[in-house]
Amino acid sequence: MSEDVQQEPLVKEIPPKAADLSAWYTAVCLKAELVSYAPVRGCVVLRPYGFGLWENLQKHLDERFKATGHENAYFPLLIPESLLTKEAEHVEGFAPEVAWVTEGGKEKLEERLAIRPTSEVIIGVMYAKWIQSHRDLPVLINQWANVLRWEKATRPFLRTMEFLWQEGHTAHASAKEAREETERMLDVYTDFAENVAAVPVYAGVKSASERFPGAVETYSIEALMPDGKALQSATSHDLGQNFSKAYDITFVDSDQQIKHVYTTSWGMSWRMLGAMIMVHGDDRGLRIPPRMAPIEAVFVPIVRGESTAAVEKAKELANALRAQGYRVRVDDRDQTPGWKYAEWEMRGVPLRIEIGPRDLESSTAMVVRRDKQKGEDGAKVSVPFDQLGARLRELLDEVHVSMYEQAKAFLESHTFSVTDRDEFFEKCRTRAGMIDIPWCGRPECEAEVKAATSATTRNTRPLQTPGAVCVACGEPAKVNAYFAQSY
Amino acid sequence: MSEDVQQEPLVKEIPPKAADLSAWYTAVCLKAELVSYAPVRGCVVLRPYGFGLWENLQKHLDERFKATGHENAYFPLLIPESLLTKEAEHVEGFAPEVAWVTEGGKEKLEERLAIRPTSEVIIGVMYAKWIQSHRDLPVLINQWANVLRWEKATRPFLRTMEFLWQEGHTAHASAKEAREETERMLDVYTDFAENVAAVPVYAGVKSASERFPGAVETYSIEALMPDGKALQSATSHDLGQNFSKAYDITFVDSDQQIKHVYTTSWGMSWRMLGAMIMVHGDDRGLRIPPRMAPIEAVFVPIVRGESTAAVEKAKELANALRAQGYRVRVDDRDQTPGWKYAEWEMRGVPLRIEIGPRDLESSTAMVVRRDKQKGEDGAKVSVPFDQLGARLRELLDEVHVSMYEQAKAFLESHTFSVTDRDEFFEKCRTRAGMIDIPWCGRPECEAEVKAATSATTRNTRPLQTPGAVCVACGEPAKVNAYFAQSY
Repeated sequence: MSEDVQQEPLVKEIPPKAADLSAWYTAVCLKAELVSYAPVRGCVVLRPYGFGLWENLQKHLDERFKATGHENAYFPLLIPESLLTKEAEHVEGFAPEVAWVTEGGKEKLEERLAIRPTSEVIIGVMYAKWIQSHRDLPVLINQWANVLRWEKATRPFLRTMEFLWQEGHTAHASAKEAREETERMLDVYTDFAENVAAVPVYAGVKSASERFPGAVETYSIEALMPDGKALQSATSHDLGQNFSKAYDITFVDSDQQIKHVYTTSWGMSWRMLGAMIMVHGDDRGLRIPPRMAPIEAVFVPIVRGESTAAVEKAKELANALRAQGYRVRVDDRDQTPGWKYAEWEMRGVPLRIEIGPRDLESSTAMVVRRDKQKGEDGAKVSVPFDQLGARLRELLDEVHVSMYEQAKAFLESHTFSVTDRDEFFEKCRTRAGMIDIPWCGRPECEAEVKAATSATTRNTRPLQTPGAVCVACGEPAKVNAYFAQSY
Repeated sequence: MSEDVQQEPLVKEIPPKAADLSAWYTAVCLKAELVSYAPVRGCVVLRPYGFGLWENLQKHLDERFKATGHENAYFPLLIPESLLTKEAEHVEGFAPEVAWVTEGGKEKLEERLAIRPTSEVIIGVMYAKWIQSHRDLPVLINQWANVLRWEKATRPFLRTMEFLWQEGHTAHASAKEAREETERMLDVYTDFAENVAAVPVYAGVKSASERFPGAVETYSIEALMPDGKALQSATSHDLGQNFSKAYDITFVDSDQQIKHVYTTSWGMSWRMLGAMIMVHGDDRGLRIPPRMAPIEAVFVPIVRGESTAAVEKAKELANALRAQGYRVRVDDRDQTPGWKYAEWEMRGVPLRIEIGPRDLESSTAMVVRRDKQKGEDGAKVSVPFDQLGARLRELLDEVHVSMYEQAKAFLESHTFSVTDRDEFFEKCRTRAGMIDIPWCGRPECEAEVKAATSATTRNTRPLQTPGAVCVACGEPAKVNAYFAQSY
């Protein structure tokens, strides 16, 4: 396997995004130093700049989890095979993806240990020990962890053997509370995707065939990529009593009856970063939405001759901004300003602050927005030094809104409400985007569409037109569904 | 293995700390809900209250890492066997402790994959790819991760198969810079231990036999436990060019010569939490130093009859304190105040805030300090409601200082500068504490002391008395060394 070390392509240029999204994506992830391929098939290293994205995702999601009453905990990486196999659907869903530990130290193990592909099992076993009474409920726990699913392909963030994620696991006294929790966390994910990552999504219910193994109902948020394929960006599962019955998680209710709890689980992984990169990037490279940006603004001092005045002023301003909580950097490397502009544009920093000799005289900086094209209205803003602290926050918010609006416009212009069967199949086949139809909800119908077009349901919502028939098959429609090809 | 699930003792009472530190420790960790035993031998679950400790450790250490120029990254969990075996001493040190993945999905692997026992290897391989020029140096990266070392015993935080830690890995152009980095991070650990965890430590250099496998020099901080045994709480390793030569990490220096880099690594794990618990706890349970406390202060409203005034006032004050950044909780459960006092004392919350009917009338709260004994001067302080926000910060700082001073007094009263050989062996044997002697530095001498007393060197510092002879063997002394039995 160690030959893989050599196989990382040397990225010189980023290919045009529209021509080959996949090549563009890989080149951007590598060249911007978000990731490197690791010497283990299917694995990547999250480099500091990529980890900076993950830290911001963690910060914003974790705040939201805590604000909704959740606490973090940590459960073991290894799960004995005998425990994993108790919930039948679950094990069937995950067994083909499990990496097995069979030797420890010098010893062959009597029982294989699975590296967690997800933690419902180990957490269910612990909840069975911890929960005794209705007073112990609800249990609202989240875990930030690495998980592993056997996988040979490697696409940074989208498809890797090991990945980072969070997994929430909760237990409730009633089905109603569990369903409310499932929906609440879906709302948290929607809020995060749109208001932090600036990625508009459709939130809804998964079809039966797309459900999490062992779930009663799975919800998802789905984003649309520039190639017309959908990317599932987070899921929230109502597990009903399936896991509590398999792992015997019971409580004494206030009526003195022993009952099984209702559980949920919900997760977002570094896949969300992949969605964000594809949605926002352009031919110059990454465009990182400000709330996710490891560097919100980069100073490029323009040095004339031997004078270090611009560099010193940039450092002074940067320190003042840091004291106000901004994430800023000063690029004082021995390179031309043009080289630095291209470099930081490629790395997607939302704002560039240029300080040249004339700016020093007038005590103003030129702030350049990454979200706009060169020459576009508002792409450059002159800001007096003493107003940078106040103005940057506004500008970053404006960049966020403009990036969100651009992505929203794309999503809306690539969402089609279709009533004609032929048009539906044609749009599915040509990967036109999100194809919205009244749908019967039958697995057979979904399977036929998939066989003919390779599109599947992304998620569903209540039927928008009472009495409509399924556009795909003509049976009575039960819901509205977005169909799309997907990652 | 799954029978282990049942084996967790039901903790009713916490045994006296002085009588049996080990029994006290296990009981406190379980009863305070820091950890639970997991259904995998050697593993524990870090429950929300325990994870709260870890989050505070992470926050304070991570701030310090970033302030010293480090960035976080994430490297893969699995390491191919062929890579692991390149640095001879390293693999010899770790091979007996490795868990091996030999099957993935349905497939038998051609090459075994190790679950990382530490990440020098995988990180060294990546550094070899990333580092080309002296302009790329230094590389200053830290990783927060789970690691696994095959282990059958389970002692929460102290000895577990899987544990959480951070591992810093840096690369430098010169031996001098690498040594400076190693010492800088030792200082960071000392600062954290003393000023956050309130645990006084001795910082110094490990003897050759206690060095990290593959290191040129290992530094450590050592804390003293109440049973007279030392606990190594963090280590910092100067790896010289051992790893850069094994993994071929080279750079073109400014003189155009190709050279091997100098690397360091340094780590602190959740073991530090174990040290903190043992150093500070008492017969009533945990005593958590304020900067590590998940809950800094707990409100216990004293309800008389049907009135909810005390609860409402507590919630109002708690919200105001939260807005100022305090971590507080209101205990409004249906239990007696006495039960709640005992509960929160056992869980080690630094301050308890009592609000009863008379307090409501006088608009004052009674603040009770966990670091003091009942009846001791200053154990209870009456604070007007409108001064709580200002006064709590001072009180928490006072609690920190008093806990640190108590621990420091214990360490100093159990540190013995010994010049007599018989007394030295006697003190080592009886586990008197840290035994400080002029020492020859010879492995043979250390081995003899260990064989006779089971004590080893903890760490060493420059010789304090020029010309002294080794107290253990009479050869010329080279350093001063602390000897102790250890965890």
